[in-house]
Amino acid sequence: MNYAPDFMDKLTSLAKRRGFVFPSAEIYGGLAAVWDYGPLGALMKQNLRKLWLERFVTSQVNIVPIESALLTNREVFVASGHEGGFTDPLVECRLCHERFRADHEIPKAKDHEHDLTEAKPFNLMFKTHAGPVEETANLVYLRPETAQGMFVNFKLVAESMRLKPPFGIAQIGKAFRNEITVGNFIFRLRELEIMEIEYFVKPGQDEVAFTEWQAAMMGFVTELGLDPERLRWYEHPKEKLSHYSKRTADIEFAFPFGWGELWGLANRTDFDLKQHSEHSGKDLSWFDEETKERFFPYVVEPALGLDRLLMTLVINGYHESDGTDGREKGEVVLKLHPRVAPITAAVFPLVKKEGLPEIAHTIVNDLRTAGAGVVQYDESGSIGRRYRRQDEIGTPFCITVDFETKEQGSVTVRHRDTQQQDRVPMDELAAHLEDATATWR
Amino acid sequence: MNYAPDFMDKLTSLAKRRGFVFPSAEIYGGLAAVWDYGPLGALMKQNLRKLWLERFVTSQVNIVPIESALLTNREVFVASGHEGGFTDPLVECRLCHERFRADHEIPKAKDHEHDLTEAKPFNLMFKTHAGPVEETANLVYLRPETAQGMFVNFKLVAESMRLKPPFGIAQIGKAFRNEITVGNFIFRLRELEIMEIEYFVKPGQDEVAFTEWQAAMMGFVTELGLDPERLRWYEHPKEKLSHYSKRTADIEFAFPFGWGELWGLANRTDFDLKQHSEHSGKDLSWFDEETKERFFPYVVEPALGLDRLLMTLVINGYHESDGTDGREKGEVVLKLHPRVAPITAAVFPLVKKEGLPEIAHTIVNDLRTAGAGVVQYDESGSIGRRYRRQDEIGTPFCITVDFETKEQGSVTVRHRDTQQQDRVPMDELAAHLEDATATWR
Repeated sequence: MNYAPDFMDKLTSLAKRRGFVFPSAEIYGGLAAVWDYGPLGALMKQNLRKLWLERFVTSQVNIVPIESALLTNREVFVASGHEGGFTDPLVECRLCHERFRADHEIPKAKDHEHDLTEAKPFNLMFKTHAGPVEETANLVYLRPETAQGMFVNFKLVAESMRLKPPFGIAQIGKAFRNEITVGNFIFRLRELEIMEIEYFVKPGQDEVAFTEWQAAMMGFVTELGLDPERLRWYEHPKEKLSHYSKRTADIEFAFPFGWGELWGLANRTDFDLKQHSEHSGKDLSWFDEETKERFFPYVVEPALGLDRLLMTLVINGYHESDGTDGREKGEVVLKLHPRVAPITAAVFPLVKKEGLPEIAHTIVNDLRTAGAGVVQYDESGSIGRRYRRQDEIGTPFCITVDFETKEQGSVTVRHRDTQQQDRVPMDELAAHLEDATATWR
Repeated sequence: MNYAPDFMDKLTSLAKRRGFVFPSAEIYGGLAAVWDYGPLGALMKQNLRKLWLERFVTSQVNIVPIESALLTNREVFVASGHEGGFTDPLVECRLCHERFRADHEIPKAKDHEHDLTEAKPFNLMFKTHAGPVEETANLVYLRPETAQGMFVNFKLVAESMRLKPPFGIAQIGKAFRNEITVGNFIFRLRELEIMEIEYFVKPGQDEVAFTEWQAAMMGFVTELGLDPERLRWYEHPKEKLSHYSKRTADIEFAFPFGWGELWGLANRTDFDLKQHSEHSGKDLSWFDEETKERFFPYVVEPALGLDRLLMTLVINGYHESDGTDGREKGEVVLKLHPRVAPITAAVFPLVKKEGLPEIAHTIVNDLRTAGAGVVQYDESGSIGRRYRRQDEIGTPFCITVDFETKEQGSVTVRHRDTQQQDRVPMDELAAHLEDATATWR
């Protein structure tokens, strides 16, 4: 896959102009590595959360969701090893005091022909204080991952829901990492959203579970429409695994800036449950009533960044016409799956008179009420211009109300990718869109 | 409404035991005013977000969602007045150094027969630092409300979505308030979730919009099943209004600890847009193309705490049998609307043999796949015991698979509140549940 050199600039600009992603509080100059989602970004995130939850949680009898807090008791991250070891090496220029990540930014740091300090570990967790006294006793962390919420609640969840391994605990929520270096739009963020499952299995069943999760993960992203040629598995070499991991493999995507992690899968073994048992004094081991064995379950963890998934889908779908497909050269089409696209359909009256706008408004309201997704009304400019406006934000269906609508009660439905137009009776419209979505190639 | 003296204790205990709400990281002693949602709490929150979004956002052509960041550029809260004035008065006992909120806790503080300091303003915003240097220049706040995200993005949202007043920007997200005093379970939290709309109108249309929102809000909470006798409007007296507000009215609920705010509605006037225009130097006024007028829109703001709504619904639905309704005295039924209840249905095989469990599992999977909600399987204990288990968590429908199921393909559906049982053909089950939900009294 070849990307133009200015690809990311174009994408960031489109994202801002059309309401996907804005620099956070831009009127005040933004905040590094923190972004606000505009209406289309927020709708797309809602769609992605829903698809993930349906696929991996609500349709699964042995996976349950939780939502643990972002403000976290310090002891959780003492036990998990984050307070001691969730660090990046930091060097500082002694003259200008700029700071760099020593492992990634040596070339950049070397531009500073000055004296650099020795690399020191810099902890990436955000700190704050809870309660009316700012002292060490009140220190709390903003969680840097969602996973520990599942581990510390493991027993309460299993008992209250009467679950036994294999079972999973799922969570969607924010996490915070005070990255030293940031960039690549919403690829590496200081505030991010994670969709993650901790899947608890009997030791010995972890390797099979790992393989099953790999299939499920790849199935999900290809069904969302990601181009298989831009996807690959990256297997972390044994010697580079995190201290808690027996095996880690990432689905990587070919980003404009190179292959990068999209979705990580880790075999965390029984590390976390053991750590928390030891540190809290509460026994988090499991007693299997059938075999009368006691053990610490192993954990297989698929962890997906929602922001990164959204960005990947937008990059994957971004397409500029070469001028041979009936569009003008350079026109942008965002090829998003109808279940992912923020706007499902747009409805256009052919002209702004003779009752066509009224019919179009009725269709908008009927489709919204029928749960067909978010549907827009647009009467501004030529029909071609309105198509282009919707193509650029990935709207799969454009519906035009014309004079035949008044006479015969039918509308045209134009499909974004093929540009094919179907004539559809108004009362079959919701079903037509649902069929086209269900059979999306 | 009379509540037993130990009502809140019972509720908190039920919430923990059955997986609604846990003290955050309880194995480490929790964290004051911060809670983790267990599986049933998380499912209920998902339902409430969905219902709110459907009602106020996706079905509305002029209301769009955003998701702005939690970490916030300090200037936002300088402009909004929070850095200067989002405070509570704090007194400290000179001897034991315990701190109290001077306006609420005088009786408690008076127990300290020691010397109390003068009341000083204590800012309720959580602070942290972004970037690898902890200095004032890097100070960021965890937002104490979602509203400012809509104001600072007002122009970007309106332009990217081509909206003009009246229009609304909606957001669901976390906010943080470092409350001096905490308590009443999840009523007053340091980490909370807000569902909020900033509705922008032309000045002069704000009062009508306010009244319309009042009707919409009360309609929503009564349709969720809240008892009208435990709801009232509280009108804030003019002299006690916040500095930015022209009028504020709250829907209050009769909690066990007294009437308390459930859902606030404020007429924020043009205060925030003007403040941000002045402070940022970016003009956030609106030019009306039709009338050629320039003005700052007025803002009407319905702001609902998701945690508090969940707690209110659980309190409202909590019911102990007096022994005259066919249940034993003291048995708990949680009367939640089927669209709110975390578990929609439970499926029981009458016995654990002769193929009944297999049929029950098939029904569970079919209903989940059909999108009927989260459906549980339970084969443990007598049918009566299984009913009680589901009653306590508010499951509206219990489905029993018996020998007639094998012969005739029908099951019994038992309705939680009436305890009435219907015989329903298996292939009509999803439709039966949907009908019963749609016609819920």
